[in-house]
Amino acid sequence: MDEVEEYRYEPKSVKELFVEMKNTVELMIDLAYASVLFGDKEMAEEVLELEERIDLLNYQLMSHAVLAARNVKEAEQIISILQIANAIEDISNAAGDLAKMILEGIELHPVIKEAIIEGEEIIGRIVVSPDSILVGRTLGELELATNTGVWIIAARRGKRWIFGPDKDFRIRAGDILIGRGTRTSIEQLKEIGRGVIRVIGNERA
Amino acid sequence: MDEVEEYRYEPKSVKELFVEMKNTVELMIDLAYASVLFGDKEMAEEVLELEERIDLLNYQLMSHAVLAARNVKEAEQIISILQIANAIEDISNAAGDLAKMILEGIELHPVIKEAIIEGEEIIGRIVVSPDSILVGRTLGELELATNTGVWIIAARRGKRWIFGPDKDFRIRAGDILIGRGTRTSIEQLKEIGRGVIRVIGNERA
Repeated sequence: MDEVEEYRYEPKSVKELFVEMKNTVELMIDLAYASVLFGDKEMAEEVLELEERIDLLNYQLMSHAVLAARNVKEAEQIISILQIANAIEDISNAAGDLAKMILEGIELHPVIKEAIIEGEEIIGRIVVSPDSILVGRTLGELELATNTGVWIIAARRGKRWIFGPDKDFRIRAGDILIGRGTRTSIEQLKEIGRGVIRVIGNERA
Repeated sequence: MDEVEEYRYEPKSVKELFVEMKNTVELMIDLAYASVLFGDKEMAEEVLELEERIDLLNYQLMSHAVLAARNVKEAEQIISILQIANAIEDISNAAGDLAKMILEGIELHPVIKEAIIEGEEIIGRIVVSPDSILVGRTLGELELATNTGVWIIAARRGKRWIFGPDKDFRIRAGDILIGRGTRTSIEQLKEIGRGVIRVIGNERA
């Protein structure tokens, strides 16, 4: 039985499915922009895998939905979930379209990368040096999104990418983090990564 | 001539058009979720107005594009801009679909609001009390996105909404701010708004 454990059916609630769809599509948009910015095909591949994941989640959500409604009022409420899920799937498809441009090796206009770096929220690359106070700590301990305004969307460790690292991800020297935030917050985190700034947000207290 | 000044043609570069599209669609997604969460029709209306703005920006971008290419390589690069702009327009349409649900008064399933509050990034309402250190300061001075991890996407002042307030927006006592961030960062900013926390991010130094 152990061999098939990874295929076991994990029943999820409508809410869990819905939260996962919402989080996944946000990660997809960020990764799609990052794949364009860095011309990175592995990130683009991940976006397409997440697009399939969204399709699966949406299918599971529909399965729940068609079994759930017992009267007209409930039907209307359940349709509202399907409508939002469809909007999320549309966004997922759009992120997939961006990623496909990278995989197809289309020649990008230089203004595209400039625009991604010029937006209100930008994508940046943070290199973690051995001196950095980030080393040896988990994302959960650091709470970078709250304390620095930067969301870590991916990390490269040697040749391996980790996409959407969770709170248990422990940063090592040499890691390259891909983050989303304001220009100022990305610059601050780069300095923290380089070991120049030795405090993080509220830790300065 | 003065009377028509507001209609004057403002030529924008491809980069400016593109950056504005990217920023606008991010605001639209946030406002669409916020309109769903708070059942707020004015926010939903704003999303639909921004959807029209995206259409206009995309049209202007296409006008630039068809005039610009002088050879096959340039044509391919310019097509890449149009492809990304189309993906942004698809996302804009999806945000518009969410907003229309609110305007049409569709009965929403309770799980939808729960999911928006349960996501990794949540939308929250920050009430600014007269005691708050936010009062009298501009968003530019405060750099809330960098210092607290919360993006302010809208503000209500009395009966009036300001959507996507810029760096010159000066906060007043009684303002209600709508922000996007982690649960922790939203809770912190609520305490700052209430006057309980008297420091902001790096100001603690």
